[in-house]
Amino acid sequence: MAEEVSNKQVVLKNYVTGYPKESDMQIITSSIKLKIPEGTQNAVLLKNLYFSCDPYMQGRMTKLDTPSFAPSFQPGDGYGVVKILDSTHPNYKKGDLARGFTGWEEYTLAVDPQALIKIEQTDLPLSYYTGILGMPGVTAYAGFYELCSPKKGEYFYVLAASGAVGQIVGQLAKLLGCYAVGSAGSKEKVDLLKNNFRFDETFNYKEEPDLDAALKRYFPEGIDIYFENVGGKMLDAVLLNMRIRGRIAVCGMISQNNQEKPEGVHNLASVIGKRIRMEGFLADDFYQLYPKFLETVIPYIKQGKIVSVEDVAEGLESGPTSLVGLFFGRNVGKQLLVVYRE
Amino acid sequence: MAEEVSNKQVVLKNYVTGYPKESDMQIITSSIKLKIPEGTQNAVLLKNLYFSCDPYMQGRMTKLDTPSFAPSFQPGDGYGVVKILDSTHPNYKKGDLARGFTGWEEYTLAVDPQALIKIEQTDLPLSYYTGILGMPGVTAYAGFYELCSPKKGEYFYVLAASGAVGQIVGQLAKLLGCYAVGSAGSKEKVDLLKNNFRFDETFNYKEEPDLDAALKRYFPEGIDIYFENVGGKMLDAVLLNMRIRGRIAVCGMISQNNQEKPEGVHNLASVIGKRIRMEGFLADDFYQLYPKFLETVIPYIKQGKIVSVEDVAEGLESGPTSLVGLFFGRNVGKQLLVVYRE
Repeated sequence: MAEEVSNKQVVLKNYVTGYPKESDMQIITSSIKLKIPEGTQNAVLLKNLYFSCDPYMQGRMTKLDTPSFAPSFQPGDGYGVVKILDSTHPNYKKGDLARGFTGWEEYTLAVDPQALIKIEQTDLPLSYYTGILGMPGVTAYAGFYELCSPKKGEYFYVLAASGAVGQIVGQLAKLLGCYAVGSAGSKEKVDLLKNNFRFDETFNYKEEPDLDAALKRYFPEGIDIYFENVGGKMLDAVLLNMRIRGRIAVCGMISQNNQEKPEGVHNLASVIGKRIRMEGFLADDFYQLYPKFLETVIPYIKQGKIVSVEDVAEGLESGPTSLVGLFFGRNVGKQLLVVYRE
Repeated sequence: MAEEVSNKQVVLKNYVTGYPKESDMQIITSSIKLKIPEGTQNAVLLKNLYFSCDPYMQGRMTKLDTPSFAPSFQPGDGYGVVKILDSTHPNYKKGDLARGFTGWEEYTLAVDPQALIKIEQTDLPLSYYTGILGMPGVTAYAGFYELCSPKKGEYFYVLAASGAVGQIVGQLAKLLGCYAVGSAGSKEKVDLLKNNFRFDETFNYKEEPDLDAALKRYFPEGIDIYFENVGGKMLDAVLLNMRIRGRIAVCGMISQNNQEKPEGVHNLASVIGKRIRMEGFLADDFYQLYPKFLETVIPYIKQGKIVSVEDVAEGLESGPTSLVGLFFGRNVGKQLLVVYRE
């Protein structure tokens, strides 16, 4: 007889409006047999180890009138690192590790899992596959190298610089020889930027009443590359400070995720005279880069040239709080959730 | 003795604020000798034939705190077609025709003229060198081919479609096999779009209380390419209707030129999920394309595959009115000014 165990799950009670709230989610407990049912082909039984908490999840928790880039919402969906406990799938065997989409629960039975990728390199912390070696890492790498055409000596800015993507893209910019300025919203985070991620200049944007003036101070020559994940009035200030032929890679506009009507961006006409290129992207479009990305980033990590700072929440019960915290900047570094350590 | 003649000039009385007003300019009359003064080398004496009226001129008439893409204002500057009456410049001889920057006056003495290009092909109307064969033509050509990566069968939209640039880019899109929709602000202009420029669909945007709804009607599949020359709330409606991997080439945002604080654009976050690329440009950056552009466009013109509709004002005295009219959409087609016909 297969062992039957209890299985805690985070489920969505309602579609969210604006930022997710803890009360939109609940923890329930069901039970699950730790064996794939007789006759079920191409299935894997997963033990969920680490979950990534990411801003894009808001979109998947929201009822959309028009189709969006993400598939329609499935309660409990999340990106994580998993261990295969049982498999009838030819690509996986018991004991394999993988990363990809799974349920926000302790154990998941997945039939025909399309969205899992086996983890081959296991001599780095497995949690890294939710961040620096996962989607945030690819977002930083693809946005920087594929969209921004970066060159040594260029002036680089990322506003939310201590988060999952910001910390990586800032370090990539530094490694290429850019002059990198990063900002964040608290002293603790700004300290990270300076001490851990080695930005050339750092500041707390919440202490700057006039972001335009702050940018003029930190970028007397202007900004060549802006990695956009905030939007709204922040983007407006950046537009005033971009250089001729500046590039803006847009992977998010988190400041706008809670606005019924998003803030207006008033300085867009700057793109004409300055010949600015602004381009939106999703990490998903660049998964073919993943092997090259790992080849580049893993040696940097092993040599200590790129570091990762994680904000680790313990236990599935902490899931709602740690996800919600993202939208208020409560996380210090890449937010993730440990269910089981391996 | 050289003949001395009177020389009417349009001069700026004051830097303009917002759109230029007729009262910002005045007509004065001085006199000029139709011969280059003894001992003046590398000079040309120009008879100004045609002047182009273009929205960018507002920027050159405005006092700027920060350096802009255009050189600082010189009273009476303008782009036009000229005839060389006298020359001590090795590249020009009496009787040559050229296009480029000259004064808004009947005759101009230019020493070391950098911004003139000789007109070699004179079997087309010379006025075309202010429009379809001049800066608006290169703007349309470079923006469409260099920035928009257009493909046959794609959905193309230009909002101000009857103007100097809009009419050309629409016809380029049609010739490539795009589905081209153009709009304009009066029945007369919309008739031009349909009858002269052969857009697939046309509409009067002033009669559409909800531009988003209008675009959904004309583009049930969405817009692949938007040629942006308007900005503001128009851009907002377009953003909602762009397709995945849509491209927006931005050569102007004329609706914003008169706003003390430009209107906000609220739907910019669309660029992320839809992976939209938006890029500003200036025709000046693409002058190396000019020979290729002429090679492409002149045969089309001769075969009647691209037509030009001009709105021709007569006489230098009409200059201020015809320039100001641009900003209120009074021109029907490419606005130009004839000083002397050749």
